[in-house]
Amino acid sequence: MGRYVVGVDFGTLSGRAVVVDVADGAERGSAVHAYRRGVLTDRLPDGPALPPDWALQDPADHREVLRTAVPAAVRAAGIDPAEVIGIGLDATSCTVLPTLADGTPLAELPELRDRPHAWPKLWKHHAAQRQADRINALAAERAEPWLARYGGRVSAEWQLAKALEVLEDDPAVFRRAERWIETADWLVWQLCGRPTRNVSAAGFKGLRQDGRYPATDFLAALHPELPDLLSKVDGPLVEAGARAGVLTAEAARWTGLPAGVAVAAGTIDAHVTAAAARSVEPGRMLAVLGTSTCLIMNADACHEVPGVCGVVAGGVTARGWGYEAGQSGVGDIFAWYVERALPASYADEARRRGVSPYELLDALAADQPVGGHGLLALDWHSGNRSVLMDHELSGVLVGLTLATRPEEIWRALLEATAFGARTVVEAFTAAGVPVDELTAAGGLTANRLLLRIYADVLRRPLHVLDAPHPAALGAAIHAAVAAGAYPDVETASAAMGARHRETWRPDPARAAAYDDLYAEYRALHDHFGRGGTDVLHRLRTLRNRARSHP
Amino acid sequence: MGRYVVGVDFGTLSGRAVVVDVADGAERGSAVHAYRRGVLTDRLPDGPALPPDWALQDPADHREVLRTAVPAAVRAAGIDPAEVIGIGLDATSCTVLPTLADGTPLAELPELRDRPHAWPKLWKHHAAQRQADRINALAAERAEPWLARYGGRVSAEWQLAKALEVLEDDPAVFRRAERWIETADWLVWQLCGRPTRNVSAAGFKGLRQDGRYPATDFLAALHPELPDLLSKVDGPLVEAGARAGVLTAEAARWTGLPAGVAVAAGTIDAHVTAAAARSVEPGRMLAVLGTSTCLIMNADACHEVPGVCGVVAGGVTARGWGYEAGQSGVGDIFAWYVERALPASYADEARRRGVSPYELLDALAADQPVGGHGLLALDWHSGNRSVLMDHELSGVLVGLTLATRPEEIWRALLEATAFGARTVVEAFTAAGVPVDELTAAGGLTANRLLLRIYADVLRRPLHVLDAPHPAALGAAIHAAVAAGAYPDVETASAAMGARHRETWRPDPARAAAYDDLYAEYRALHDHFGRGGTDVLHRLRTLRNRARSHP
Repeated sequence: MGRYVVGVDFGTLSGRAVVVDVADGAERGSAVHAYRRGVLTDRLPDGPALPPDWALQDPADHREVLRTAVPAAVRAAGIDPAEVIGIGLDATSCTVLPTLADGTPLAELPELRDRPHAWPKLWKHHAAQRQADRINALAAERAEPWLARYGGRVSAEWQLAKALEVLEDDPAVFRRAERWIETADWLVWQLCGRPTRNVSAAGFKGLRQDGRYPATDFLAALHPELPDLLSKVDGPLVEAGARAGVLTAEAARWTGLPAGVAVAAGTIDAHVTAAAARSVEPGRMLAVLGTSTCLIMNADACHEVPGVCGVVAGGVTARGWGYEAGQSGVGDIFAWYVERALPASYADEARRRGVSPYELLDALAADQPVGGHGLLALDWHSGNRSVLMDHELSGVLVGLTLATRPEEIWRALLEATAFGARTVVEAFTAAGVPVDELTAAGGLTANRLLLRIYADVLRRPLHVLDAPHPAALGAAIHAAVAAGAYPDVETASAAMGARHRETWRPDPARAAAYDDLYAEYRALHDHFGRGGTDVLHRLRTLRNRARSHP
Repeated sequence: MGRYVVGVDFGTLSGRAVVVDVADGAERGSAVHAYRRGVLTDRLPDGPALPPDWALQDPADHREVLRTAVPAAVRAAGIDPAEVIGIGLDATSCTVLPTLADGTPLAELPELRDRPHAWPKLWKHHAAQRQADRINALAAERAEPWLARYGGRVSAEWQLAKALEVLEDDPAVFRRAERWIETADWLVWQLCGRPTRNVSAAGFKGLRQDGRYPATDFLAALHPELPDLLSKVDGPLVEAGARAGVLTAEAARWTGLPAGVAVAAGTIDAHVTAAAARSVEPGRMLAVLGTSTCLIMNADACHEVPGVCGVVAGGVTARGWGYEAGQSGVGDIFAWYVERALPASYADEARRRGVSPYELLDALAADQPVGGHGLLALDWHSGNRSVLMDHELSGVLVGLTLATRPEEIWRALLEATAFGARTVVEAFTAAGVPVDELTAAGGLTANRLLLRIYADVLRRPLHVLDAPHPAALGAAIHAAVAAGAYPDVETASAAMGARHRETWRPDPARAAAYDDLYAEYRALHDHFGRGGTDVLHRLRTLRNRARSHP
């Protein structure tokens, strides 16, 4: 009789479940469930309009994945559910919601359903930048010891900025919230009936360092009621791969799995992918290329890397120091371009060739000589996570002429994200954290031109993970550890992790040509992002003012 | 029996002829002929590919307008051709061609037909920027007295830079050219059989000041053979509205007009429009808003305006000092956007509504609050004519987010050209040349949103000329003077010029909001255009290098 684990990955637009063999990590079946509501950016369902920079989700969408995708994956695998020994899950982060003490999301209370702040705030909700700015200023002023662990700046995407935004903009919702919890931890709670907090999110998104959250007096200096947040985020902390509890009878009914099987601690999607990529050994960096990009690495020591999102003890596996960095807009920028700027003639041509617009643009852009378009872009359409950590920055495109063609802009956007990735990798290297190996995973690894550009721009071999659902596989590996099949994530990752599909190696001539463009990128990056001009912030201020008093 | 004059306007993509009543300027008929070849930017007809930044025309296209549009306009007017007493014409400028001594274009010699430099170079041919840079550097070093008349910088679009480009890149063509002549003057030559040079183009585009062209030793310092250009540009100079000659029998056959009628001196399209707009009195500025924008004004005195294209004695009318400034890309940028960046869904929506893409974008953008898009553009997709006079600059777009919509980018592009216009008007004011009245003409006056934005950004009333073919009307007014119906262009303009269709007045609140955006525009303008960074030039250099050695 085989032994299987289930991994469930809650993404930005859909959730997916995989059934995996505990022995070797082979995927036996999978299923995807697209969220009904998707991302709420314009208005609440049957409710009020949302301001700019908002992004919410519906907890019902997440619950529905457990009810539909998990049993569908088991059916697709053709296995007996009784052979499943554990379940693990990951979610985007920091995607955070207010709930009652029993786990009921405030957004599901009829009296709060029309209150935007009652809803789960998706990772890319960027409306708390002002709060983040104040947190950063106060932490710098008070020389808070944890600040350097986040590269000197905390993000508007994280728990504290989002909580302060709720407290200031809708204090009644803040007061009603008995818990303020990451979606992954909330989902684990739904499965095992016990609220836990995963060490990784508590550290990377909750500012927990050296065993404690930011101090009460620090929080009080931001807002007198903010110290109340500490009780709302409280709960047993659980290490990566540890068992949070066992499946309840109710969750067994939803999922079709046996009650009592192990439920692993919640995880962050990109971080858990490191286990799937066999990138948990020190010095192996994983780049998850998707809507946004997450860069994850373990190291033996704690170094404070300026501008890098975080370093957390036990943040990736229970051993060692986990590092996270990232780019807040990557695939999102490409999707924006195709939706908002692809001319009709190109859409027609793609149809004629029977390819997607992405494939057409790649095909037209592939043979351009490096620099032949004369363009340069800053990849800040969704702000900058690393190394500037500023979500009120915005995208820039320079070098446009009347001869500029769509595939040239397309390529400049692909390149801009590669330059952004190089900026982060160089920040690691400069801080004494060597990057020995680089593996790419995520939806964008389907784009071969992008991979080639990354290898050329980064001037190093780029391995590509061969796993259709890497985060869900990682969650399944954690489940195997939680079920006791392996002693730790490192061992489970070595046995169950996926292989490399291919390796892209830089072309010396293209890499040299990209060095010139990268130098220009860094100059523009520093000018627009480090105070040469503050025009991007001022334009956003003018925009917000104009929209609030049209 | 009535008396009529014919005006012919040779634009970038088509030529048009009008038949006009000498008494009051009323248009009796018109006809348009689209050039068969249009603008050659990619390759010669059945010939070699052209490098970046090239733009050529076919002289046969121009000749064809005389053969088709003129007789068609006379037929449309329903008049007896015998009632026509004169013909005048204007063309884009500096659109210049090499010919033999008999006027045969070198591009029409079989042995030179495949040589790109033998073809007429359209005004927006921008491949001679390096030559212009050297001309500027040398003129500054030698303190050439004429340099300040061109705002301190001459343009890559003008006669000298283009001629030096031919001499350096294809010396055999330069040597073979017995004449180097503006298209307008060449066309007058075709009509009356006598080569003349109009004072306006000789001054504005040929660097003729105070009765002389640049000195032989200056030219020789640029290239030993360049002084030979002086004999190639030689010819009788003719003032605005003066008679260049009379219609030859051959040209009478082409046009269907009586042989012997007056042919007016050639004119520049934008400059001759001042007569149609009754803007020839001092202090009345005419803005011709089209593919590019030309700003034309007469004044009593000669002031040297930094960055402004030119001040020429007799440059607009025989009396006073004519000023020209301009923006090298305006309607071109809008057309680029619609062709290269308008999404299919917008094209579909325009079709559904039965409007043009331009009208749809205007409708969607019209109600945006000022600054509500958070965007700012630099309108340099075709370089900058005033006040930077640098055709190797390129377009910039900042403030992009994932929420940015096409109509927001569209509006930012419209606004960028308005900011560009304000930059030029402020340069005049700062130099002590007052602008008392502003009238708009040209194809873009069909765009009501654009007119509203210009009035708001420029903070002054914007009159709109009510003439379907303003340049051709201006050419007809010049013809009336050449035929002796009026003593001078001023008198003819007052009698025959068109009225205002409407006047747009600034809205104080919008104008105040635009002041903030304009301040940001000027800061970006100076950073990218005045040495804060040279990235636009470096990107162009990388582009050209990549394309020449792919």
